[in-house]
Amino acid sequence: MIIVIQCKDQVGLVAAITGVLAKEQLNIVSLREHVDKVENRFFFRVEVEQEADAASLESKLQMVLPSDAIITVNPLPEKKVVVMVTKEYHCLTDILVRHYFKTLGAQVLGVIGNHTTLQDICGRFDIPFYLVSHEEKSKKEFEQELAALVYKYAPDYIVLAKFMRILSPDFVAQFSGRIINIHHSFLPAFVGANPYRQAFERGVKLIGATAHFVTNELDEGPIIAQQIIPVTHSHTAGDMMKAGKEIETAVLAKALRLVFEDRVIMYRNKTVVFE
Amino acid sequence: MIIVIQCKDQVGLVAAITGVLAKEQLNIVSLREHVDKVENRFFFRVEVEQEADAASLESKLQMVLPSDAIITVNPLPEKKVVVMVTKEYHCLTDILVRHYFKTLGAQVLGVIGNHTTLQDICGRFDIPFYLVSHEEKSKKEFEQELAALVYKYAPDYIVLAKFMRILSPDFVAQFSGRIINIHHSFLPAFVGANPYRQAFERGVKLIGATAHFVTNELDEGPIIAQQIIPVTHSHTAGDMMKAGKEIETAVLAKALRLVFEDRVIMYRNKTVVFE
Amino acid sequence: MIIVIQCKDQVGLVAAITGVLAKEQLNIVSLREHVDKVENRFFFRVEVEQEADAASLESKLQMVLPSDAIITVNPLPEKKVVVMVTKEYHCLTDILVRHYFKTLGAQVLGVIGNHTTLQDICGRFDIPFYLVSHEEKSKKEFEQELAALVYKYAPDYIVLAKFMRILSPDFVAQFSGRIINIHHSFLPAFVGANPYRQAFERGVKLIGATAHFVTNELDEGPIIAQQIIPVTHSHTAGDMMKAGKEIETAVLAKALRLVFEDRVIMYRNKTVVFE
Amino acid sequence: MIIVIQCKDQVGLVAAITGVLAKEQLNIVSLREHVDKVENRFFFRVEVEQEADAASLESKLQMVLPSDAIITVNPLPEKKVVVMVTKEYHCLTDILVRHYFKTLGAQVLGVIGNHTTLQDICGRFDIPFYLVSHEEKSKKEFEQELAALVYKYAPDYIVLAKFMRILSPDFVAQFSGRIINIHHSFLPAFVGANPYRQAFERGVKLIGATAHFVTNELDEGPIIAQQIIPVTHSHTAGDMMKAGKEIETAVLAKALRLVFEDRVIMYRNKTVVFE
Repeated sequence: MIIVIQCKDQVGLVAAITGVLAKEQLNIVSLREHVDKVENRFFFRVEVEQEADAASLESKLQMVLPSDAIITVNPLPEKKVVVMVTKEYHCLTDILVRHYFKTLGAQVLGVIGNHTTLQDICGRFDIPFYLVSHEEKSKKEFEQELAALVYKYAPDYIVLAKFMRILSPDFVAQFSGRIINIHHSFLPAFVGANPYRQAFERGVKLIGATAHFVTNELDEGPIIAQQIIPVTHSHTAGDMMKAGKEIETAVLAKALRLVFEDRVIMYRNKTVVFE
Repeated sequence: MIIVIQCKDQVGLVAAITGVLAKEQLNIVSLREHVDKVENRFFFRVEVEQEADAASLESKLQMVLPSDAIITVNPLPEKKVVVMVTKEYHCLTDILVRHYFKTLGAQVLGVIGNHTTLQDICGRFDIPFYLVSHEEKSKKEFEQELAALVYKYAPDYIVLAKFMRILSPDFVAQFSGRIINIHHSFLPAFVGANPYRQAFERGVKLIGATAHFVTNELDEGPIIAQQIIPVTHSHTAGDMMKAGKEIETAVLAKALRLVFEDRVIMYRNKTVVFE
Repeated sequence: MIIVIQCKDQVGLVAAITGVLAKEQLNIVSLREHVDKVENRFFFRVEVEQEADAASLESKLQMVLPSDAIITVNPLPEKKVVVMVTKEYHCLTDILVRHYFKTLGAQVLGVIGNHTTLQDICGRFDIPFYLVSHEEKSKKEFEQELAALVYKYAPDYIVLAKFMRILSPDFVAQFSGRIINIHHSFLPAFVGANPYRQAFERGVKLIGATAHFVTNELDEGPIIAQQIIPVTHSHTAGDMMKAGKEIETAVLAKALRLVFEDRVIMYRNKTVVFE
Repeated sequence: MIIVIQCKDQVGLVAAITGVLAKEQLNIVSLREHVDKVENRFFFRVEVEQEADAASLESKLQMVLPSDAIITVNPLPEKKVVVMVTKEYHCLTDILVRHYFKTLGAQVLGVIGNHTTLQDICGRFDIPFYLVSHEEKSKKEFEQELAALVYKYAPDYIVLAKFMRILSPDFVAQFSGRIINIHHSFLPAFVGANPYRQAFERGVKLIGATAHFVTNELDEGPIIAQQIIPVTHSHTAGDMMKAGKEIETAVLAKALRLVFEDRVIMYRNKTVVFE
């Protein structure tokens, strides 16, 4: 069982929390804490060996914690996700394969694409694919169709696995803190369109990928994971894009694992990641 | 103030320890714990904001912990070190420079070399240098001279910064768990002499360096830190040695920082490293 | 078109080769050379924009090169491969997905498994799967069955994508220099069985994976690519295995790309890799 | 001897150049070429075993190359450098140590600082230190003093080893392509002041350092080398700065080695780096 807590910092929090756990005879497998001294905020994640009644434990914890405490007691259920894609396959297939072999740590309810390119591969993994084209309709209509599908599935998370349409603040606001995106650059470098073209023009020697929660500012949400690979003068923009796909896949896979294992806590525009 | 604890694992240890800290009004800045399930062993490190009487705190902690508990309450004094070298400068100068600018986290009491090559550079940093040649004497006599000098300084740690003589189990036993060595390979690959030559012959694509505590088996002590860099077919054994020096310097610097900050706990032939 | 050459070194080789290319009006896109001074051996790879008659070009090159020259003129055909697996999916699915989306640079003729675990996933990608069990038969019989299947397909390369049976020197000799294996350690550390268990016992801080050609010595063949990831005291042997799968997949993918693009030249027990 | 060439691309360039070398009985040790297809530009670097008359060889090469060819025949003399610093020691001491042990590949003529902080360490290495304060004078006057000192030494390169004053386009124009700077971020992320503060605010998971030639746009010059290290939520801005110093040192050292070995060719706002 996993317990995640954030609240304002004060003396004795760890003693208070672990005191409750000890009284319940819950054995700590791993414990991580962090205090943001600037914000005076306390973050805590603990894994205990035994299962216990979540609601009861939560209320016992609430009693010994500051009133602003956000407590999540998570009996490690599989998270539920909807994946949104455009034409590029690499992030989606990584998810489908892990899902098929039950190593994703989440259940893929369905895939929504704005092109049919990835319909066949979903079928091969028995995952429902929905075409929601952005063509010949307003952005608003397009997003209403997307939202309707998402609401139908009621997923814990929406994974943008190379979904190449920019979502409006209105759409994002409906699923605040629950949309995970993979951006094909080392943010905050090369925000926006065509980062590999930008990287090529600038003559960088490393390129990167960033997995982050989506907020209403494009590419400005809390970062979960980042990774880079070296490039040289001999990489064209196309070569960079090709090389970048490998780390996009790796960094999204890592971010999803971290999120699905309740290792990521969001606050302000940042994350605490207890790896 | 830093408190480091290891003992056999049981339910309620974190609660017990942090309960003592809370009662003493000590505010936790950072806390790390680890349980080795195979060995049923508990490891703990906490930094608290305030200073407190070490002996009194230790005895209060001892009362709530299993009788086998090893407790260190460390008011962050500067560690004291003696450095042993042969001819290569890169690890030594890194230490001397950090020492000079007070970023080493330790006091360098002196440098012992079995060649005079590095005498001048020590002088430039006002660090005493002692020549203890291994020539024209038995290994036993050589090590007795070394030990006499070390005993004179009574350092917390002996740092072998590219000291190229193999120390006997007798010597090592006198300073058990207090000798830190930098080995010029990714252990356990290429144990022993000439690892770069071995790496070249094997045609590896990565070379490494390993900082470890020295025990009586050559290159078999608990590993503190390791790092690698890529090499190619175009690296000669000499090029590998040159490239390797960069990571030897980096990995020893990292290991020393970890040890000097009381982040490394030894047990069996391993380390727990709370970075 | 790609031209790969190795021969003994002498003055004027690059001039001689590029002179032939210039006379044929072949425009150099990229050129790499390497001289092993120890072996006095010359290695060369060039990509030219245009296609030309391979046999004719080869004989023109032969005329200006030492008589021991090995010349390959390769009009970039798709390589043909047979993949051999046991139960672990991660390397195989990476190959199947790239093959399906035509980014593998090779044609997968079929998959041979000694268990049925991966039969279904092959079917989903329309790739023939052959069960060749090693049970209730001698190693010799087992390998004869494998060899018969391989001969039927006559692939350019056999990829051991986590094939967990050790192949005999007799089997290997039949496909010399054409078998590519992924070994789950940073060779030459942890040769043989259970490298993650060995790594855990040793308390290493990095684990690795190695893609190499198979020769008759176990885990001793020429290394193509290697990669590592950091681990800590908190990784169990099982966690290391799980983390290791990610780099096994990545490093095999990289090695296959390098081999399929004719970037890897074997000699003695090493490789020259023109990335 | 090293020969570096750039010119517009055409068929037969490598044959023409290596033909001249072969006729002169110059044996190629290593050869690298690159063609920028977008710019139709050819870049070439060759190391030959023998020394030859530079002027004569240059004119023989000029005859077989396009008229725009820029040819440098470099008998590997030590480059001469002036280093400019402010208060941070880590990049400077790395240079001083390598210089002292003759592994820098360049001669340090002198160090200019706008504070006295690093005067003593220069003295310990017998390197002249000049204080040029920026206080109580106009930027123009400050830069005139700097320029006067630089002109006196006539170095091949000016190394900004954590020099924290922004140089004007006027100053830079006088030493175009000869100023090397270390910037404490992964450019183009966090251009300008306080990049670690910016990185902390943004919650990035990697921080970087960039060595680049200085042009008249701040932090916009051709990049030579870049490197990153991972950071977590537990890094304060100060911790990031401390961690960053390690890679600043490493990446500047690498860039200097590449430049001093004539491995870096500038064009437009980029570099070709033949490692």
